[in-house]
Order: sequence, then structure tokens, then C-alpha cells
Amino acid sequence: MLTSRFFDEASGAELFFKCENFQKVGAFKIRGATNFVRNLDDSPAARGVVTHSSGNHGQAVAAAAAARGIPATVVMARSASSIKKEAVRGYGARVVDCDDSDTSRNEVSQAVVKETGGTLIHPFNHPWIVAGQGTLVLELVQQVAELRGTATAGLDGLVGPVGGGGCLSGMSLAIHGLAAAGRESAAEIYGGEPAAADDAVRSLATGSIQPSDRPQTVADGLRTALGELTFSVLRQHVSRLFTVSEERIIEVTRLVWERMKVVIEPSAAVPLAAILDNADVFRGKRLGVLFTGGNVDLQRLPWVAEPAGVSPT
Amino acid sequence: MLTSRFFDEASGAELFFKCENFQKVGAFKIRGATNFVRNLDDSPAARGVVTHSSGNHGQAVAAAAAARGIPATVVMARSASSIKKEAVRGYGARVVDCDDSDTSRNEVSQAVVKETGGTLIHPFNHPWIVAGQGTLVLELVQQVAELRGTATAGLDGLVGPVGGGGCLSGMSLAIHGLAAAGRESAAEIYGGEPAAADDAVRSLATGSIQPSDRPQTVADGLRTALGELTFSVLRQHVSRLFTVSEERIIEVTRLVWERMKVVIEPSAAVPLAAILDNADVFRGKRLGVLFTGGNVDLQRLPWVAEPAGVSPT
Repeated sequence: MLTSRFFDEASGAELFFKCENFQKVGAFKIRGATNFVRNLDDSPAARGVVTHSSGNHGQAVAAAAAARGIPATVVMARSASSIKKEAVRGYGARVVDCDDSDTSRNEVSQAVVKETGGTLIHPFNHPWIVAGQGTLVLELVQQVAELRGTATAGLDGLVGPVGGGGCLSGMSLAIHGLAAAGRESAAEIYGGEPAAADDAVRSLATGSIQPSDRPQTVADGLRTALGELTFSVLRQHVSRLFTVSEERIIEVTRLVWERMKVVIEPSAAVPLAAILDNADVFRGKRLGVLFTGGNVDLQRLPWVAEPAGVSPT
Repeated sequence: MLTSRFFDEASGAELFFKCENFQKVGAFKIRGATNFVRNLDDSPAARGVVTHSSGNHGQAVAAAAAARGIPATVVMARSASSIKKEAVRGYGARVVDCDDSDTSRNEVSQAVVKETGGTLIHPFNHPWIVAGQGTLVLELVQQVAELRGTATAGLDGLVGPVGGGGCLSGMSLAIHGLAAAGRESAAEIYGGEPAAADDAVRSLATGSIQPSDRPQTVADGLRTALGELTFSVLRQHVSRLFTVSEERIIEVTRLVWERMKVVIEPSAAVPLAAILDNADVFRGKRLGVLFTGGNVDLQRLPWVAEPAGVSPT
């Protein structure tokens, strides 16, 4: 957990950053994946786990399976970078290629499940995943209380990002559980979402899950639509969601590198960007803020223009 | 202070990283500057302080003077980036331009001292600066002991970089002082130096201070030659110095960003690079390792080729 005088002054709030970029596999996803894998009974566990993800969740499942010593298969788009595939293989998992479409991803995953008898791990829409992500709040409130030298963290709010909603759901349930047990004060739950992928805002506004149709956002961890489980949790617990422009996501990512000297991925800048853009809401509040992860391509930074003649691969 | 399973495995040693990139002004230099400014008597303090530095020391003096509420003048090369000049002015200091030569720097600084009656703060060759830098060791041993749950840190060695030698001198004196007081075990002092700026290695080998003639190294904090004071301290206390290639400095800088998710400047990677390159010396040892600072130009990373047609400014 880190604090920053610069961002406290910029926001007018008191910010406590939970740095999940320092987490194993470089993102909070290891929490849910580990909780899921640990909860499996011995017999299904022996048949292994399966998931489809080209992002942090894929690596997290591979690492969690390796820690329990069970097989893992990660279904990844043929077009996914070889670096990401190597990282998954580095944990001893098997990579199976699919086409870059939801249909292919699902078909190939189901085929692997049928072949191996393994258990499919959805990246967010499962109670074990949600509960696992929520553990970050248990650590955060303890660390804030220690730093302040007080019995409780006494946070006014928690601010996280919304992609599939697993993380913010876990954060909501964890702080409400602590408050119900009288161990923490109730904190408001706020979410940040890329304006270019605002399906959660639209879902809460309309009261039904809205699709996220291949949104173009640099925050590649936040492109997914909500699931039934996460939608129902967020509906109940979220005080307010804020959208953030692409320009601001990139700007705030860079500002965090520059001022806090930590490497975060663009998705991780979204909650802080929401705070900085809405000082009227957040000024004077004590807030727990999530940095979700730090997995970026250091060869191609979002704020540096591509050299002419070089196209992204 | 951070640890890293990745670098422990890569080195075969147990590493504790003191992260001075998280320090005020983004580098350890604030320690020496603050100690110097605080030690001044009221009367000379009122006349202000003067220094010449286009790097972290200039900002550190400006910030330390601002904290005591006294005037500061920083003499900077006319060619220094406007970002660096703005940073110094941001602390309320005055920037005075000079030409990019030692002669001009000294002449202009002396003129400012004559005009203002202020005190010149050398970047490393002064007991107050050396003592200030040494305070990082006092924190490091306390943090290591806390993390290990032991009464002392019990470090086998401390590894820092060598530029002017102020930092490594301060580290040496601090750990020897603690050992003499029976509060820590004696630790060996190791230094890393860019092979392209190996004047300290040559100075210790020949027994006299060797000049550093505008060396071309990406580790821009380590281009200076030793001073009389730092040379005598290092001669007495350093167990061994290691040189590191430019290629390795850049490679290790990037590896730290990628694996530890912290932004360090190339100079800060030199001690770790020395450890990784000399496993025969360091394997099995418990080491305190210094990350000196994190001030880099995020627009122009050393491992990314310049776009064609764009020349550095």
C-alpha cells in the first residue's frame, strides 16, 4: 500500500493506494484464481482447470494451478502475443489456440472441458472468484489502520474499476461484511469505467445487463460486460459509477509512473482518474483506491507515438 | 523497502531494496541536502544556499531550502531541459544559466556566492552531505529487521553505486557506526560503477583520485569523479567495486520495471546489475541494495529505439 502527497493535493482527498501491480502475476486476478483452485475438491481438482483469457486471468489460473500442483489449460486467441503465451507456459500450463471470437473461445474451451473433465474457471462471474478478489480489501483496511495508528481504517469510500465487475463486487462484499461485523465503518463503493466501454453504467441505469461490443479502449482489462452475479452485487452496493475518457486514462497512467514511480497498466489508472475528474464528489474524503495491475508492454507506451512505418503486432 | 522473489532467484542472494525512487524529489539526494541546510546557522542560512547541478541534487537543494524557508539559487547549464529548470523553480528556487563546462559552472556559482553571500553546497564532498545520505542505511536496517522479525537486520553486505562517492561513503559510515555501537553486525561495502565511467575503480587501484572526463554513460547520476573526502572514506571501507556495461545497465533497468513494477533511473540499476553479474561473490548473501532514484524521461526510454527523424533535444 502506498500514499502520495502529490495525488492527495491534486484530489483534495486522502488516498490509500492498494498496489496490486506488486501482486504475484502482476495483478489482483491471482486472488480469485487462487481461491477458486483451493476450493475445488480433490477429485475434480485432479482433472485440472480450464479457462479462456489472453490477459491477467489466464496467467493467474496457470499460477494458481501450479501452486496446487494440478493441470491447467488456457485457451488463447491465435493472435495473442507470444510473450503472453510463454508466460502462461512458464507456469506449466498448456496453451490451446482458438480464433479471436467469443464463439470460438467458448467452443474450444468446452471441447477442452469435455476432453479433460476439467473445471472451467470463469474470469469473474463466480462466487469463489468474487470472494477471492475481495481479500484485497481485508489487507487494505488493515494496512490503512496500521499506517494511521488507529483501530480501524475508517475509510469513507473504496474506488475500483469495472470490467466484468468481479473485483468491485468482491470489494463491496468485503467492506460490507466487515461493517456488518462491526470491524469497520461502512464505506461507499465507487466505480470507474472507460467512457468507451461504459456498459456497466448503462446496465445500472437501465436495470438490465447491457452488452459490451468490442469496445476500443486502452484499458484492456475493462472491456468485458457484467455477468448475472456481478450485476446483482453491484446493483445493490455501488453508490456511483463514473466514466473516464481515453485521454485521461493515458494521462493519469503516465502521471502515476512519473509521480509515484510505480508501473501500472492503463486499466489501473481508471479509479484514480475518476477521483481526479470528480473533485466535487471526492474532496475531503478518505479513500481506498485500487491499482489493479502493472502488466504493460514496456516497448510500446500508450503516451509515446509509434515510430513511422512500424505497425503494432 | 521492497523484496523480489524474481531477483532473489536470479541472484541466488537475499535482496532488500531500499527504494529511494519513492523519496521526495525522487532520489536519495534530498537526504544530504536536507541535512546540510538544517545544519546551517541562522545567519548564513538567511543569506541562502547555492549549488550547480542539472540533476537530482539541484532539485534536492531547492526543496530542502524551501522546507527551511531560505533562498536557493541553482546554477544550471543553458542546455539543460526546461522540465528540469521548471522543477527547480517549482520549489521556489532561482535558476541561473551557465555554459556547459566545469569552468563556467564554477565561475557562475562563485559569482552568485559573492553576490548573495550564500553558502555553496557541493553535491557530495562534504561531511553533512555524506552523513545525510547515510541515513538511508539507518532506515534500511530497521525495515529489514522488522520484515525478518529479528532484532537486527544481519546484512552480509550493502551494495550502492559510485558517482562522486557521497552515497556509498554515507552508507559505509552509517553501517560501521551501527556495528561499532553493537547495534548491527558489520556488513561488507560493495559498489557498482558504469564501466564507461570507472574512475573510482581506477582511483582505488592507483591510490589517487582519477579524473572522470565527460564519460558517455546512460547512468547520468554516476559521471562524476570522487572528491578528497569520499575517496578517503571509500579507500578505508569499500571491500570491492564492480564495473557494469552500458548494455547491462539498460537491461537491468528494464527488468526492474517489468518484474518489480517500479520506475528506477538507469543509475539506480547499477548496484543490482553488479550483483547479477557476480553471482560467485554474492550468492548466499543477505544484501541491502540501493535504488538511488526514479527520475527518467518517460517519453524516451533507453531500451526503445528513437523514431527515425526525431533527434534528442
